[in-house]
Amino acid sequence: MISNAMKPFVNGSSQIRAMIEEGKRLARIYGAENVYDFSIGNPGLDPPQEVFDAIDYINHELDPHYVHSYPSNAGFESTRKAVADDLNERAGGDYFDAEHIIMSCGAAYSINMINKCIFDPGDKLAVFAPYFVEYGNWALNWGAETLVVPANEALNFDPDAEALRELLVPEVRAVMLNNPNNPTGKVYSIKALKAVGDVLREAEEKFGHTIYLIADEPYRELVYTDAKVPFPCDYYEDSLIAYSWSKSLSMPGDRIGYVAVPKCAEGHEELAEALIIAGRVLGGTNAPTIQELIVERCLKCRSDLDYYKRNARDLYEIITGAGFEAIYPQGAFYMWFKSPVPDDKEFVNAAKEERILLTPGSAFDGPGWARASFSISNETIQRSREAFERLGKRYFG
Amino acid sequence: MISNAMKPFVNGSSQIRAMIEEGKRLARIYGAENVYDFSIGNPGLDPPQEVFDAIDYINHELDPHYVHSYPSNAGFESTRKAVADDLNERAGGDYFDAEHIIMSCGAAYSINMINKCIFDPGDKLAVFAPYFVEYGNWALNWGAETLVVPANEALNFDPDAEALRELLVPEVRAVMLNNPNNPTGKVYSIKALKAVGDVLREAEEKFGHTIYLIADEPYRELVYTDAKVPFPCDYYEDSLIAYSWSKSLSMPGDRIGYVAVPKCAEGHEELAEALIIAGRVLGGTNAPTIQELIVERCLKCRSDLDYYKRNARDLYEIITGAGFEAIYPQGAFYMWFKSPVPDDKEFVNAAKEERILLTPGSAFDGPGWARASFSISNETIQRSREAFERLGKRYFG
Repeated sequence: MISNAMKPFVNGSSQIRAMIEEGKRLARIYGAENVYDFSIGNPGLDPPQEVFDAIDYINHELDPHYVHSYPSNAGFESTRKAVADDLNERAGGDYFDAEHIIMSCGAAYSINMINKCIFDPGDKLAVFAPYFVEYGNWALNWGAETLVVPANEALNFDPDAEALRELLVPEVRAVMLNNPNNPTGKVYSIKALKAVGDVLREAEEKFGHTIYLIADEPYRELVYTDAKVPFPCDYYEDSLIAYSWSKSLSMPGDRIGYVAVPKCAEGHEELAEALIIAGRVLGGTNAPTIQELIVERCLKCRSDLDYYKRNARDLYEIITGAGFEAIYPQGAFYMWFKSPVPDDKEFVNAAKEERILLTPGSAFDGPGWARASFSISNETIQRSREAFERLGKRYFG
Repeated sequence: MISNAMKPFVNGSSQIRAMIEEGKRLARIYGAENVYDFSIGNPGLDPPQEVFDAIDYINHELDPHYVHSYPSNAGFESTRKAVADDLNERAGGDYFDAEHIIMSCGAAYSINMINKCIFDPGDKLAVFAPYFVEYGNWALNWGAETLVVPANEALNFDPDAEALRELLVPEVRAVMLNNPNNPTGKVYSIKALKAVGDVLREAEEKFGHTIYLIADEPYRELVYTDAKVPFPCDYYEDSLIAYSWSKSLSMPGDRIGYVAVPKCAEGHEELAEALIIAGRVLGGTNAPTIQELIVERCLKCRSDLDYYKRNARDLYEIITGAGFEAIYPQGAFYMWFKSPVPDDKEFVNAAKEERILLTPGSAFDGPGWARASFSISNETIQRSREAFERLGKRYFG
């Protein structure tokens, strides 16, 4: 019944499913409050008050026909204009007009729109390990394979431009870059990003075709240190931005994001037109209208950074205090720390015995490490201290 | 910059675009009130009051974390259960449990989810002309070609089961069926549907594999005569239902629908699982949550049928009064009428000179006919009378 093309997606999905089921099983046995679930990617906060106010306004003050009928496939003109203006202001340049912004139902959908426009079967997408494995599925939807640039611990998990240079082949049409990063919680250094830009420009010259950098930026606003997240065009012109308000407004269920095609990107006009068509023929048709109108009114709103900042600090203290080696999270809401044994799945299973749920690094092509998502209550983090101490004692005595 | 795979989608899109631009151009010249735009597919009504009440309830009474964070990819359990119960009640049988309903961002997305699960490159989708041409794009997304069963005027545009039988080849994995129909406004006769079911069962036997009937049903509730829209399983077991609330609640911008996999369909358990994964890896991730919670509360609400009924009656009277041969609309919100010249594009251009905007039948693989969408104000329909009379005089004197 299921197509051969679909089977690898189904098979690849069982691991995630098993993890979710295991979390539920433990919660049933020990009570949800006694399970320390660091495996989830749901923002731990409610959306800011402005979101609720915007919904009231949209529901009561705007023309219902405007709100609920089809907008153009690319989204409301006013929303696109507001997003373009806001991006120009933040990037400090004239990068976007309204027609360079195509509204979408989230960053995952944005990336599929991009992939559909640029990949032919046999093409390749380069990714920097560790990386979110769905990138591979979203490329495979359009027949493209994933080329993994190995993680480089010596670079403290910055993207390894030299390794990229060695791996690049003519089939590579795009490079995925997620900054701030899931799963490492890194904000990539500007030096590393510039090096990636240099390698890609050199490769464009060598291979004679455009290579797009797909900047997956749902965590752009979630930064807890003084690290800067540069605007992609600052280090590479042929950049396409996939954004979602899932994290910045704590509303992932709402499915609202965009693709932004800056004027500095090769073929930006043709590509923006094609992206609109891709958004339609993929079946999404348009981004949901209530949500477009919400974000148009909440472009300056942010989630409570202090919440994540405190969680980052406290979890880092607990995990390193228990003897583990961890990278201090600069952004996103993940802590990346070293498995005390080479087999990170074995380690994650040991943690489970202490009712700590983690995601093995190998699920991100980053074996030997583990990811703890700290988008949970600070109270849960505090209560996990003893469990982490017991887990540490197993390895460090 | 654009992939070869994407090019046919871009090229095919220019015709629709040209029509929209032409409508805007005429409105600029003559004023929007002097252009009779029968080319649009937007519902002419506002959503029923219950939708606005539901939004207030969701925004003020429900736990914000529940509303705005990720539900499971298939949607809220309560929404799926409510939809399953409602469908069972209406179909008069035990066809669905919650796990047979996968929420989606609209019928177009539902069909893409289905297509991704069942098509391998080289497979075929059979469609009955005239048909919505996006069906072809949604199949082509997954490498499947479209096999067109020609329109049969002698059958009054009912699906032609005998023609289907002659065209069926082993590569056909699915047949698309849109009832009530866009563009004909037909509710297919039960006799014709049963004949289609018989042909498909026979073909499954002959070719030794399942052939799914994809029932695209966004217009299920929009019926103006006593014609019945049978539940697909009543005439064919291996049916999958793609639904959207775009028309029944007049909220197409909101992007909310489902795939329903009845228990009578071969492989329903495996398929329902695969559909959830398809919905995720296509990038939609989940249907938008506010909208899931709206429809859960509005399952018994309907758009104002009298509005469409009156428009159907009045437009039929105007168009036939001007001398044209038309099919009386039984459902959806389209009137299908005969071009007085074989070249329907020439006819549509002549209509444009009278400021009447129509869609040529050939845009639906139904040459020699034209489609008038009557989801517009009754006043506009009334004001179009003289323009139709002038248009009729050009051909009938």
